[in-house]
Amino acid sequence: MAKKTIEGVFTPMVTPFSNDRILFHGIAKNVEKMNESGLAGYFVLGTNGEYKSLSVPERFAVLKTVLDHRASNKIVMAGMGFESANETIDNILRAADMGVDSVSLLLPHFFPKRMTPEVQAAYILEAADASPVPVVIYNNPSVASGVTVKSETLKLVKDHPNVIGIKDSSSETWKENLEAAKGSLCVMAGSANYFYELLKAGGTGGVLSLANVFPKSCADLYTLFKQGKIKEADALNERLEKLNHEVSGAFGVAGVKAAMDISGDFCGGVPRRPLKGLTAEQIAGLTELVKGAGLE
Amino acid sequence: MAKKTIEGVFTPMVTPFSNDRILFHGIAKNVEKMNESGLAGYFVLGTNGEYKSLSVPERFAVLKTVLDHRASNKIVMAGMGFESANETIDNILRAADMGVDSVSLLLPHFFPKRMTPEVQAAYILEAADASPVPVVIYNNPSVASGVTVKSETLKLVKDHPNVIGIKDSSSETWKENLEAAKGSLCVMAGSANYFYELLKAGGTGGVLSLANVFPKSCADLYTLFKQGKIKEADALNERLEKLNHEVSGAFGVAGVKAAMDISGDFCGGVPRRPLKGLTAEQIAGLTELVKGAGLE
Amino acid sequence: MAKKTIEGVFTPMVTPFSNDRILFHGIAKNVEKMNESGLAGYFVLGTNGEYKSLSVPERFAVLKTVLDHRASNKIVMAGMGFESANETIDNILRAADMGVDSVSLLLPHFFPKRMTPEVQAAYILEAADASPVPVVIYNNPSVASGVTVKSETLKLVKDHPNVIGIKDSSSETWKENLEAAKGSLCVMAGSANYFYELLKAGGTGGVLSLANVFPKSCADLYTLFKQGKIKEADALNERLEKLNHEVSGAFGVAGVKAAMDISGDFCGGVPRRPLKGLTAEQIAGLTELVKGAGLE
Amino acid sequence: MAKKTIEGVFTPMVTPFSNDRILFHGIAKNVEKMNESGLAGYFVLGTNGEYKSLSVPERFAVLKTVLDHRASNKIVMAGMGFESANETIDNILRAADMGVDSVSLLLPHFFPKRMTPEVQAAYILEAADASPVPVVIYNNPSVASGVTVKSETLKLVKDHPNVIGIKDSSSETWKENLEAAKGSLCVMAGSANYFYELLKAGGTGGVLSLANVFPKSCADLYTLFKQGKIKEADALNERLEKLNHEVSGAFGVAGVKAAMDISGDFCGGVPRRPLKGLTAEQIAGLTELVKGAGLE
Repeated sequence: MAKKTIEGVFTPMVTPFSNDRILFHGIAKNVEKMNESGLAGYFVLGTNGEYKSLSVPERFAVLKTVLDHRASNKIVMAGMGFESANETIDNILRAADMGVDSVSLLLPHFFPKRMTPEVQAAYILEAADASPVPVVIYNNPSVASGVTVKSETLKLVKDHPNVIGIKDSSSETWKENLEAAKGSLCVMAGSANYFYELLKAGGTGGVLSLANVFPKSCADLYTLFKQGKIKEADALNERLEKLNHEVSGAFGVAGVKAAMDISGDFCGGVPRRPLKGLTAEQIAGLTELVKGAGLE
Repeated sequence: MAKKTIEGVFTPMVTPFSNDRILFHGIAKNVEKMNESGLAGYFVLGTNGEYKSLSVPERFAVLKTVLDHRASNKIVMAGMGFESANETIDNILRAADMGVDSVSLLLPHFFPKRMTPEVQAAYILEAADASPVPVVIYNNPSVASGVTVKSETLKLVKDHPNVIGIKDSSSETWKENLEAAKGSLCVMAGSANYFYELLKAGGTGGVLSLANVFPKSCADLYTLFKQGKIKEADALNERLEKLNHEVSGAFGVAGVKAAMDISGDFCGGVPRRPLKGLTAEQIAGLTELVKGAGLE
Repeated sequence: MAKKTIEGVFTPMVTPFSNDRILFHGIAKNVEKMNESGLAGYFVLGTNGEYKSLSVPERFAVLKTVLDHRASNKIVMAGMGFESANETIDNILRAADMGVDSVSLLLPHFFPKRMTPEVQAAYILEAADASPVPVVIYNNPSVASGVTVKSETLKLVKDHPNVIGIKDSSSETWKENLEAAKGSLCVMAGSANYFYELLKAGGTGGVLSLANVFPKSCADLYTLFKQGKIKEADALNERLEKLNHEVSGAFGVAGVKAAMDISGDFCGGVPRRPLKGLTAEQIAGLTELVKGAGLE
Repeated sequence: MAKKTIEGVFTPMVTPFSNDRILFHGIAKNVEKMNESGLAGYFVLGTNGEYKSLSVPERFAVLKTVLDHRASNKIVMAGMGFESANETIDNILRAADMGVDSVSLLLPHFFPKRMTPEVQAAYILEAADASPVPVVIYNNPSVASGVTVKSETLKLVKDHPNVIGIKDSSSETWKENLEAAKGSLCVMAGSANYFYELLKAGGTGGVLSLANVFPKSCADLYTLFKQGKIKEADALNERLEKLNHEVSGAFGVAGVKAAMDISGDFCGGVPRRPLKGLTAEQIAGLTELVKGAGLE
């Protein structure tokens, strides 16, 4: 039984808010615009989506909006990581019923000291057994109380038929994890900072916050690489990596959202309270960067 | 307008599970037994309650069970910290409608780098403004991605009429926070390790995991201190502090739950998956300690 | 810890349909009218409610309608029996979250030969452990593939703190079950045929389909009995028992619904397809009975 | 307009569970292994599939898994019988949209006394009218509160262009039904006990629980019969019938599942709670039978 794969460039969809409420037609607009690009698909309810700031009913309303508007050739992967294995499975079943293609699991981290590789593996395997859709591990210690997925954990789960990949958002672990995953799991970069380097090392794609602003350019980088147009790819990557530092790196989700609004093509808005949006000064600086990028 | 106060010893209620489902009559039994003690009240849906492992409907079912069974002279404080200020307020309103006396807020921590004192204060003040019941700040960096409440934050919120205290579970900050809180906020120790020391320094009480196993003894320590029986208090504190290291310190929630079962008076069970219960060997060691403690 | 009790007269609420869709304002009207009576409460999603003919989302919409309109002094008990223990618990948690006071469980019966007392008890105990509200066993072999709850089963579950009673709709078992339940479980009659006899033998109440048509009279019978007005109670019971044979006995749910429409006070409608409503001739005969009953 | 037909051997797919959750990759494994056999197809969500123990979203997740993995030359028939005609049709439409080839309807049986031939026919005809795929009647009184499909019902529906057959799981009715169906409906045996006899009498195939364990042998029996190799067919049938008594006959679904695990080729697991799996002793006895059968 051949495993499914996950590859290409995904957008980690932001959740726009207005008056601190989800702006659903903003989501619809973003999806419809991104449908025109060469993106592989959408990662909904991840860190850029501020999923932990959404109630569970809100999460499914967001997910439904993306599913209703995505083009049929775009993959939808939904973030379904909860602290409890059982709550994770309940919500995976609901997401699968709605039509998602795969789920991504940020691992439990409320009790970080207890999250040994064995406990992590138990969580992943229980979810993968019970999930009707493929499971992608999501490693992001910066939002997970420092809890990190390392090769010890991957070794315990990589042969499960329904664990198909890892999205690694840690610049410190992706190389080790890529090595451990070889032949068994797809590896997706969680950041433009090392997306291109990961592709060259055998990774299969990336989930790039910058694809919220420049979906075409992000998708182009992947295509150029796959076509062997290394010189063009090198040049494009250099521009994207620099922009990524200046947008997502400097300002996080608030920066990505502001850049979306600046672009004129997408609806970003501000993060949910108590998170703050950018200052007028920060927006001014960002406007120059985004408008001057010459990317789309 | 005089602020309300929070004082005495609270039990941070555990959530017993059977088959990974909440064992509601176990909660009822624990509350009814603890009603007989000199405890000030119950802290429901905190770290020992594994609240992040409960779905929101489950959290309210747990809370309702405690409210239904608590003696009328016991305070109920419920953990209502969510990442979003809006979700926090929605849930505070529901908890208040059910009859809780106060709420405790673990501050947002999914984006730890963004949690400046100003952002923390904005969250606390928005919730306190909108809450019909008093708000207690909950500082516990070990479960909150390292996010810490420090004096800078307290200074911004301590004069709000509805922010009445802080429960500090960090041995590193409580002294500084006690200083900053003086005259404005009650300070409760989040651990038996420094509960007694905090009382002596002007704190008002503690939320002690050990009160799940030895509620009477934990309450007695507070009473002895208030009565000025310092010699007896010193002796009792020494025993409780040692036990706390051996139970909660060594094994966390799993240890507290196992000790409850061992005591024979309470229903503990095992943590929710993927967390693990103790090994047979660990239980054997703990049995000796709990049975030999001569406390109740 | 004292068990909760269940007593008095409950209406097993019918589900009115129009164009084969649930008529929600019909439910609301019925509840508001019954609120004026001396009924103890409402049993929603039982046999008379045709609950197996409702999708799960429809069931919760019906339940919500009853909860939204019930007077605060009326108990709501909801039928939550599913074949799977896990699906049962999931739905109990949802019903409890919505505010039901207790749940009633028709036991699994898709594999009737496998339903030994041990398997029945395992189902009941698993649900009772995980339910935040009290559990009432529902015995009705005529709709349950002949699966019967007998004293062997009751003996295995009657001491559970959250199993509070049995609603027995079998004229063949209620005496044996009443005996087995004594001192541990409340016993409710599932039919007016032996409701009064059961009260005299120590039962605590009844769930009477006739209460859909004559709620006041059904409630009165209970009150007269409790007040020791045995002569009046005898007389009223005779009339109700006779009517019950002619309405529910002869025509089942379709008869109850037709009688409700005939009464002019309630909304009955017809059963859901493929079940059929009464013929014009049957309705004519029933009209005479209902109008001539002189009851309300 | 020629009716479609249904013929050959179908496997009534079991639903494997782990931790009482559906083990989706177990289903995938079973389908992929059975794809190699000469089976006509898969009957999903029937009695052996414990479909009444699955929530509706779970049913469709199971169905999707089978559809995703079935070889293109295998037919998929899905069990879509609900008490309500409307719920039946809603779910048939969804199943058809997902790609099932036909649906099988276990008739309503919650009110067994009301299930006259006219009511049964009304249900079948309403569903057949509204179904985009052919409808097969499923007669199984042992799981349907004794409700039986007899010739009176068949006569009322057999000429409907979209009612194509009956799967008869009652040893008492199949002969009468085969007679009534002749020329209008395909008749499939619901048990290996009379599958071969039914073929000889003009039936078109069978849905055999034993095909979960020995798909090749079950398919071979059909092929041998069609090729007129009666001697070989007689011998093979004798062995299969005996095994069927010892596996499915003695232990029901739990026995079929245990035999699948014993075979080493398939994933069976245990039934869903509260149903029980076999005892160690029962498994030991079954192991001898399955290993010693010399079948595949």
